[in-house]
Amino acid sequence: MYYASYFHRGEPGVAEVRDGLLVPLAELTEISAKTSTDDLANARRLPSDAISLESVTLRPVVPNPRKIICVGLNYLDHVEEAKRDLPAYPVLFAKFASSLIGPDDAIILPPESEQVDYEGELAVVIGRPGRRISEDDALNHVLGYSVANDVTMRDYQYKTHQWLQGKAWDSSTPVGPFIRVASTVDMANAVIRTTLNGRVVQDSDLSHLIFSIPRLIAVISDFTALSPGDIILTGTPGGVGFRRDPQVFLRPGDSITVEIDGVGALTSGVRAEQASL
Amino acid sequence: MYYASYFHRGEPGVAEVRDGLLVPLAELTEISAKTSTDDLANARRLPSDAISLESVTLRPVVPNPRKIICVGLNYLDHVEEAKRDLPAYPVLFAKFASSLIGPDDAIILPPESEQVDYEGELAVVIGRPGRRISEDDALNHVLGYSVANDVTMRDYQYKTHQWLQGKAWDSSTPVGPFIRVASTVDMANAVIRTTLNGRVVQDSDLSHLIFSIPRLIAVISDFTALSPGDIILTGTPGGVGFRRDPQVFLRPGDSITVEIDGVGALTSGVRAEQASL
Repeated sequence: MYYASYFHRGEPGVAEVRDGLLVPLAELTEISAKTSTDDLANARRLPSDAISLESVTLRPVVPNPRKIICVGLNYLDHVEEAKRDLPAYPVLFAKFASSLIGPDDAIILPPESEQVDYEGELAVVIGRPGRRISEDDALNHVLGYSVANDVTMRDYQYKTHQWLQGKAWDSSTPVGPFIRVASTVDMANAVIRTTLNGRVVQDSDLSHLIFSIPRLIAVISDFTALSPGDIILTGTPGGVGFRRDPQVFLRPGDSITVEIDGVGALTSGVRAEQASL
Repeated sequence: MYYASYFHRGEPGVAEVRDGLLVPLAELTEISAKTSTDDLANARRLPSDAISLESVTLRPVVPNPRKIICVGLNYLDHVEEAKRDLPAYPVLFAKFASSLIGPDDAIILPPESEQVDYEGELAVVIGRPGRRISEDDALNHVLGYSVANDVTMRDYQYKTHQWLQGKAWDSSTPVGPFIRVASTVDMANAVIRTTLNGRVVQDSDLSHLIFSIPRLIAVISDFTALSPGDIILTGTPGGVGFRRDPQVFLRPGDSITVEIDGVGALTSGVRAEQASL
């Protein structure tokens, strides 16, 4: 089962995706801190109001999460290409809700950065609140999974030892197209693959995560409560543009797809920011 | 002029502080992204409903900011004690809204950390939205100033090279007691002082900021829009407990005060987290 957040004729809505159609959930306008796994599962479906995917604009699967917590260096091959030591604790940093864009939005290249890079990642969406969640219980707190591109301005990321200004550009990070409900999919060995203009640039699978999804939830919830709609970006495998020889950065007109088995494919166009901004 | 966010008999409110009394602002429940500098200035005052400070519970001056952006290593003496190079760009990281506590709340020592440390800081509260704000225009976007204690779990901060897990513990960071409206105060040389159980442990003034308030606003708004209620924590001077010999960490029963000339004094008790959590 999949959920989508969307605008249809200017109105926000949440739907279950069935056979390429969006079946609205009654009385819900977006997936948020107020929509738990159970709220979504129990919401009344309105199949007689089903709408086509072509008639909506998909939003980030959670348009306004309270927290977006990102994991760095969580695949061995990416640790190696970044010439880092194997971490004993996950490398954690934050994005803002304003960092997100939807699967129908283009990645915008701001005039300030010359080094906008891709990072294909699995996004975990929380569905039940909790603090100090045990690893054994962690998957019970997951609503589902989505696909993200943790777009990073490398020249800003490395301005200091803290990464925020390279990771939290407004309208930089697509998440979508849908949420695959956790109870309906096994992510243990799912392939994750990033394709830039038809060329495969990242190709791994989730068995290579250094810190598993339950471990990440346990570690993060030690220090901060997780709420429905919170997003954990679980890190990117090797093959990012900055570590290639020659380096590869996103350019206007590029098309980049991140695809995860059983979750979906997220394709984003790339364009320069309008001078008027 | 000063503003406060508070609960009175269970109801949230915003007030102007006059002669130790809170004069409620009509129809406002908290300072947030929806309350610009002008909204607050123009709100109708209700002096006949004035209430005493003793009868309210003060909340964090902005209880639910969209963004909390913190600056590390922004005083030369703290850069030196941390044995870091002088930064050419501010060191930036984030906290969550859930990190904040009010000036009437105790700092809670979680059982996981043995190294809870203080950091007295000036908090800048945004009052007008903007992106790519120029330094010249920056102060026009400031609602006012408050006092913060950027409480940090040092053993968590240094688990990896990214600091989030040491900086974003739930209910760790007092901000208050009030917002001093920017147009009514000159911060250029204001003294900032931290006192632990009566002993002065940090003593500096804002002329020593490496990156000025306008510069911080310009740099941050290059990559993310600022909204009313957003908080910038501008960094701490030298004298933090972790860099002392012997080291000093917060203990149950401590009382810690951060005071900034013209802004206010923020005094927090310290206690251990209840085992029931």
